[in-house]
Amino acid sequence: MGASIPMQKDYIYIYHNFGTLIWPSCSNPFACLVLHYREGIEYDSQNPLRVFNVHPFMMFFGFIFLIGLAILSHQTVPGSHETRKIIHLTLHFIAIILGIVGLCAVFKFYDMVNWEDVTSLHSWIGIGTFCLVGLQWLMGLGFMLQGSAQSRSTMAPWHVAAGRALFFMAICAALTGLMEKYTMIKLVTHHRESHLINFTGLAILLFGVFVDMSVGLPRYA
Amino acid sequence: MGASIPMQKDYIYIYHNFGTLIWPSCSNPFACLVLHYREGIEYDSQNPLRVFNVHPFMMFFGFIFLIGLAILSHQTVPGSHETRKIIHLTLHFIAIILGIVGLCAVFKFYDMVNWEDVTSLHSWIGIGTFCLVGLQWLMGLGFMLQGSAQSRSTMAPWHVAAGRALFFMAICAALTGLMEKYTMIKLVTHHRESHLINFTGLAILLFGVFVDMSVGLPRYA
Repeated sequence: MGASIPMQKDYIYIYHNFGTLIWPSCSNPFACLVLHYREGIEYDSQNPLRVFNVHPFMMFFGFIFLIGLAILSHQTVPGSHETRKIIHLTLHFIAIILGIVGLCAVFKFYDMVNWEDVTSLHSWIGIGTFCLVGLQWLMGLGFMLQGSAQSRSTMAPWHVAAGRALFFMAICAALTGLMEKYTMIKLVTHHRESHLINFTGLAILLFGVFVDMSVGLPRYA
Repeated sequence: MGASIPMQKDYIYIYHNFGTLIWPSCSNPFACLVLHYREGIEYDSQNPLRVFNVHPFMMFFGFIFLIGLAILSHQTVPGSHETRKIIHLTLHFIAIILGIVGLCAVFKFYDMVNWEDVTSLHSWIGIGTFCLVGLQWLMGLGFMLQGSAQSRSTMAPWHVAAGRALFFMAICAALTGLMEKYTMIKLVTHHRESHLINFTGLAILLFGVFVDMSVGLPRYA
């Protein structure tokens, strides 16, 4: 394919679109859902629903959003390659910590209501993705600290491909989680709340597609 | 990134792995689900469940599998660039026809049981993806028949990026659909059936990741 390589401003353009358009359209319906319809958020509450809400909040604002930013940071942060790598690594580290808090919250919720843990497709995809993200982070750190320039450049395409696949899996985990919630509350809920869930899901999907494209497009040319 | 470009045998290796390992692991639990636990398949049945089963069968074996093959055909089919393009186009065309049958089946099912159409996140993602795939196919056909070599090569990276994003969306639609089914039947089902749903979902996700990587990896180098 003989296309010319898209210029830097193309990524900036995609990034700005994502920042100004997609992120509020994810976060606003999500905030409405949790705060208006679903009791609010508190980790140390006696109300299981308030404990549960820590889970989607941490996974969505912490894990998915920060990992999206970490992926974009390689294209958008000014400065040296080293600076970008450190920002990429640090954002992932914060995302993983917030993800751990989110996972603890959902296990605590399941304990409080005496349900069986880790039975649904959502939980299988979510936990699988979380473990693989942790592994990928450790391998990235190992190569950054120990690897030779030769081994780093051999690993780079695999690291990028695996990272994109894991981000894709994280989006799938989020959507299956929203779908589970939607189906469970379908019979007793406001019509407006179910629309909010759908809009949140579509916005998360769009966020995933934009992040993926901003990494992918410059490499296709 | 200075990595060497992976050789052709790498794609063949990934493709063979996908063919021999992933596809049976999607299709076997799926066939068990539909045939053993869920009444079988028939479009013109009086039993709404048999009509409904046409939907996942057509979307999964028809739409997702054929579109996966169509994406891979660009890497794996021997012959000229023109031959590959015609195979790519034809496989997509068959996939879209089978997808239409699958969509008709689910609308027929909703009519039979008098449920409200197109309310869930699964249906929003699914119908959105289906329309965009149709549009992408028409645009691809238009450029193939009408476009100049210059315009084709300018569009190519966008066509590939959009195609990968749409395949990603189709996988998300499949997983949210499985999750909806899982949550709806959770309280009355066999434990074994819910595990089969989870394995089917994971296998579909793995299929998506492998197809995406077999397109992406050669471009990262």
